[in-house]
Amino acid sequence: MFELVGFVGATGAVGRIMLEMLQTRKFPAKKFRFLASARSAGKTIRFNGVDYIVEELTPESFRGCDLVIASTPDETARDFLPYAVQAGATVIDESGYWRMKPDVALVIPEVNPQAALDAQGIIASPNCSATPVVMALKPLHDAARVKRVVVTTFQAVSGAGLAGTVDLHEGTRAALANTPYKYECFSHPIAFNAIPQIGGFKDNGYTSEELKIVHETRKILGDDSLQISATCVRIPVANGHSVSVTVETERPVSPEEARALFTSAPGLVVIDDTATGQYPMPLDVTGKDEVFIGRIRKDLSHPNGLCFWAVLDNLRKGAATNAVQIAELIAKHRFGWQA
Amino acid sequence: MFELVGFVGATGAVGRIMLEMLQTRKFPAKKFRFLASARSAGKTIRFNGVDYIVEELTPESFRGCDLVIASTPDETARDFLPYAVQAGATVIDESGYWRMKPDVALVIPEVNPQAALDAQGIIASPNCSATPVVMALKPLHDAARVKRVVVTTFQAVSGAGLAGTVDLHEGTRAALANTPYKYECFSHPIAFNAIPQIGGFKDNGYTSEELKIVHETRKILGDDSLQISATCVRIPVANGHSVSVTVETERPVSPEEARALFTSAPGLVVIDDTATGQYPMPLDVTGKDEVFIGRIRKDLSHPNGLCFWAVLDNLRKGAATNAVQIAELIAKHRFGWQA
Repeated sequence: MFELVGFVGATGAVGRIMLEMLQTRKFPAKKFRFLASARSAGKTIRFNGVDYIVEELTPESFRGCDLVIASTPDETARDFLPYAVQAGATVIDESGYWRMKPDVALVIPEVNPQAALDAQGIIASPNCSATPVVMALKPLHDAARVKRVVVTTFQAVSGAGLAGTVDLHEGTRAALANTPYKYECFSHPIAFNAIPQIGGFKDNGYTSEELKIVHETRKILGDDSLQISATCVRIPVANGHSVSVTVETERPVSPEEARALFTSAPGLVVIDDTATGQYPMPLDVTGKDEVFIGRIRKDLSHPNGLCFWAVLDNLRKGAATNAVQIAELIAKHRFGWQA
Repeated sequence: MFELVGFVGATGAVGRIMLEMLQTRKFPAKKFRFLASARSAGKTIRFNGVDYIVEELTPESFRGCDLVIASTPDETARDFLPYAVQAGATVIDESGYWRMKPDVALVIPEVNPQAALDAQGIIASPNCSATPVVMALKPLHDAARVKRVVVTTFQAVSGAGLAGTVDLHEGTRAALANTPYKYECFSHPIAFNAIPQIGGFKDNGYTSEELKIVHETRKILGDDSLQISATCVRIPVANGHSVSVTVETERPVSPEEARALFTSAPGLVVIDDTATGQYPMPLDVTGKDEVFIGRIRKDLSHPNGLCFWAVLDNLRKGAATNAVQIAELIAKHRFGWQA
C-alpha cells in the first residue's frame, strides 16, 4: 500500500467526493496528509474516523509522499505539482493545467490505462465534457475507426464550482419571484437561459472548454488525425453534463452494432428504449460513476454516420471518480491491490 | 383589403400574439370572425377596440371568409381547414398537420415568399425549430450550396403550450423547496433537467420534432439532396429556442463571409463578439421577431465546415410572427398594402 498520500483540495466539491470514495472503497494507504491554500489551512477533515488538520500547501508539503492527488485551480496545479514530482510522488491532477503537456499522461482508466502505468511525471484526469465523448468513441474507434466527430454539450452549473450552484439556485428563486439577483459566477443570467460560452474565447472563435474536448479527445485516443469540433453550452441544470454526438466512422456502424459495442465497453451503460421513452438524463445520473448512453441511431446526414446522446455526473466520472480510479489502477499494478 | 378574416385559435399562446400583431401592424381587413373549439366558444375577445364573441368552429364557419388564419392542434387543422379551402379562403395554418403534404406551401416569407403567392390551397407555417435552421441556411445555400447539416436544439417549454410553462415554473418551485410535483405536460421532470425527446419516436429512432427539422428544411429550401440530421432536446428555459448548427458547404465559407451573408439576409440579426462575450441567448430574444445568430466560426472537423448558434422567440418568429408575415405578404401582393 501507499506510505503517505498527499491530498490537495479536500475542501472543494470534487475533493469531498474523492475523499468519500477513498474511504468507502478502502483505498490502500497507511497515512494521509491534507493540504490546501492558506485560506483553508487549519480546517479539520474527518477521514476514516480520524480528524486531520488541513496544512497549508508549500513547496515542502510533499516530502515523504509516494502518491499525491490534487483537485485545485489551474494556477495551484501549475505552481505546486512539480514539487510533488520532484519529491518522487506519483501525481494525479484534476486541474486543466497539465493535461496537454507532452510529458504528462492524460488518462481515463477504461480507455488508456497503460498511459497511467507508464507515466514518469504527472497523470492528469480529463475535462468533464471530454470524458463522455472519449469513452463513447473508444469502442467505435477500435471497431470502425472514427474519422469525424461533432459534439454539442449541455453542461450543468456544478462544473463551475460551488458558486455556480449558488447562482443557479438563487438566480432561479429570484426569477420566479421576479426580483433582481446579481450573478457572481456567470457573466449572464443562467436561470431559465442557455449560455453558449464556457471558459474564455480563443482567436479561432472557440472557447477554452470546446478546445479541451478537441485536444483531450485526440490525446486520450492517441489519434491526432481525428477531426473533431465542439460547441459547449451552459444550461440551468444543477449537476450532470449531457452531450449530443455525431460520429463518422471509416465503415458504417449500425445502431445495433453500436449498442452492442457500448454495452460491452467498460464504464458505459446503455439506456436506450424509444418504445418506453428511456434515455439518460442529468437528473438521473447524479451520484453515479458511469457514462450513460442513449438515443443511438443512424445519422441521417451521412451514410457512415451515427448519432447518440451521453450523460455523466460531471463531478464524479467527469472528475472525482476518474481520478480515484487512476489511483486504484496504480495501487492494483503496484501492490496487487483489489477493491 | 380582406373582406372577412376567420381566425381559429385566438385564445392560445400563439393566437394571442398573432392578434396583438394584427392590431399593432394594422392588418388590412374589414371584418374578423373568431372561431374556437366548443370549450372556448362564447368567450369574449377584444380586438381593435371591439368585443367579439368567439364562435364554435364548424364546417360552415368559414362561409364568406377570404382569409383564414389558424393556430390549433394538428387534429383540428386536419378536420376543419379543408372546409376553409372549399369556402374559397386563403388559409394560413400554424399546425404541423399540413406542412409536408405535396399540395401545401410551406413558407418562411424571407426564404420562399413565392410559394405563398403561388399556393392554391393551404399555406403552412413551419416548425419553430426548423425556422432558425432554414433562415440561417438560406444565404449559405445560395452562396455556396449547403451539402450537409447537423443540428442540436435547446428548446424552451413554451413550445409545449401553456401547460409546459406551468410545469417548468411549478416543477422548479417544488424542486427548490424539495417538495414533490406531478408533471402534467412532460413525461420526465423538466426542472433542472434536459430531456432528449420532443414528440413521439419513429421507427428510425428519431423523434417527430427531429424529423420535422429534416423534412421541413428540405421542403422550404427546395432541395431534397440536402443531407440533414437533428437532435432535439427540451431544457428548462421558459421561452426561446436555440440551435447549435454545423454546416458543410460545397466550397469553404469563411466565418467572415458567413457573417456578411447573415448580416445582409432579411430577418437575421448577427450578435457575435467574442471579445465582449456577445452572443444570442433565449432570455434576450423574447418578444423579438428576428432570428439571432452568433458563435460563427470554422468547423474544426471539416475543411468546408462552419459552426454557428442561432436563437429565436419560438412563439413569435417560430410561430405567430411567421404566420402574420405570410398574411401580410399576401395583402401586399393582392392589395398593394404596405405595413
